Amino acid sequence: MKLTILGCYAATPRTFTNPTSQILEIKNRIFLIDCAEGTQVQLRKNKIRFSQINRIFISHLHGDHFFGLIGLVSTFTLLNRTTDLHIYGPKGIQEIIKLQLRLSNSWPKYGLFFHELESNESEIIFEDEKVVVKTIPLKHRVYTNGFLFQEKIGERKLNMDAVQNYNIDICYYQNIKSGKDITLDNGKIVKNAELTFDPIAPKKYAFCSDTAYHEAILPIIKNVDVLYHEATFLQSEESLAKKTLHSTSKEAATIALKANVKQLILGHYSTRYENIDFFREEAAAIFSEVVLADDGKIFEF
Amino acid sequence: MKLTILGCYAATPRTFTNPTSQILEIKNRIFLIDCAEGTQVQLRKNKIRFSQINRIFISHLHGDHFFGLIGLVSTFTLLNRTTDLHIYGPKGIQEIIKLQLRLSNSWPKYGLFFHELESNESEIIFEDEKVVVKTIPLKHRVYTNGFLFQEKIGERKLNMDAVQNYNIDICYYQNIKSGKDITLDNGKIVKNAELTFDPIAPKKYAFCSDTAYHEAILPIIKNVDVLYHEATFLQSEESLAKKTLHSTSKEAATIALKANVKQLILGHYSTRYENIDFFREEAAAIFSEVVLADDGKIFEF
Repeated sequence: MKLTILGCYAATPRTFTNPTSQILEIKNRIFLIDCAEGTQVQLRKNKIRFSQINRIFISHLHGDHFFGLIGLVSTFTLLNRTTDLHIYGPKGIQEIIKLQLRLSNSWPKYGLFFHELESNESEIIFEDEKVVVKTIPLKHRVYTNGFLFQEKIGERKLNMDAVQNYNIDICYYQNIKSGKDITLDNGKIVKNAELTFDPIAPKKYAFCSDTAYHEAILPIIKNVDVLYHEATFLQSEESLAKKTLHSTSKEAATIALKANVKQLILGHYSTRYENIDFFREEAAAIFSEVVLADDGKIFEF
Repeated sequence: MKLTILGCYAATPRTFTNPTSQILEIKNRIFLIDCAEGTQVQLRKNKIRFSQINRIFISHLHGDHFFGLIGLVSTFTLLNRTTDLHIYGPKGIQEIIKLQLRLSNSWPKYGLFFHELESNESEIIFEDEKVVVKTIPLKHRVYTNGFLFQEKIGERKLNMDAVQNYNIDICYYQNIKSGKDITLDNGKIVKNAELTFDPIAPKKYAFCSDTAYHEAILPIIKNVDVLYHEATFLQSEESLAKKTLHSTSKEAATIALKANVKQLILGHYSTRYENIDFFREEAAAIFSEVVLADDGKIFEF
């Protein structure tokens, strides 16, 4: 997986910082997560080809997470896109986008499909042969979901020594990789475990923004490889965090610890802070495997 | 008047160019004309204080002229704005903005007033003691207006030699400046023309984007000091200009010539052209007083 942070600051676009959007590359699929104003320019700066984006996931209908969506949808039209585009987001997102397309008399020629979300339970919203995406219901001032991106478990790996030792014909390899036992010509059954190694463990990435401290997400994000969790405030602004249903850096770290994730990425910093290093310091006291998101930063895992 | 070009390129925001928006400072009023995606950042880069903007004029509902509006309206809320904001634009603009404010549960605490336009005749849409703003109905794929910004004629200037010669008391000066004749103690009437000079000629700025070549605008923009006219294409792409109801640089210059304007500013260049100098060259062959808009450029007149 490769995660490119296009923007990770709260509230408003500024000269050198951008509100939330990210590109997740997973099993050769390119997913756009949130799409604040300025996302198009950030995509260009980070050399992401627009035509590669076929699925967009919007967490909630606050401007710093989706005001760039209508512009991107329109630019796709100008770029003569023909491929279908799928947008996953809260109920209402379809009305917002379609109203503007209708009034600007600029209906796309490509297929534009909305998958509106309104459940308060985690649900699978996308699945293909290699990837599953589930919602992570969050606790915020409006209906909000995080998203869990999971690779599906791959094929088992052939133990070539064992396979050759039993003189198994190549035409059975695919069956073995998919987990089947093999019956030899002499009738003996060889267990799959003897012929294969475990596949590479599938990776999981959880995106959680915006949310108050919310332990209900723990079962969903348990053991993920990477958790992006919002940390809008430092603990010194705890009361403001509570009031606005955002998290402090300490709270994000506590969630990471309790969910036993491998790595925590912090983001969604309030623009009141001039030095974001304090976010890392505050979190690291609780959960050491913490890094800071920043616009243009790339994480590979 | 001072005109700051925040963005003057067509179609989409790019790494180093922005779609249409401008700030016009006129008689200490700050007007925002169009508001494409990225306008907030351009305002910051050009050090325009957000709180000074009280009136926004939107030409039409194509994204490259208004997709930044919802973000700006929302940012005003985050900045704790309390002053009224007036938005002038095509019918539908209110629905677009209010739908998003409602779904994001972020209703402004300041007064937000929409002045929706639907007339195909030029009309006065704003007037106070020093400034008048009129629409300039344009010819485009959707309902579109340009805007004519006019200073009102100021007070007449006292001819101090004449005034002192007649020994006129200072308490009559305001009457004289407002154009009245004066009756002396001896009953003699002194005509105002003898006591004053003409006031500074009021300035006029016409913003015309987007539009096909459209001579119907000539009576409205006649003799303006500065005309900003779109030139999306060069004459080599004349057929494309016709098809998309845009103008070529040559056509913009022809309009400037026929309207007898003092200066022409070109903008709204298609991003297909790497060198915008050709726009100036093409126009200058017809109308010599032509300059190119560019993002961040300031014109004072």
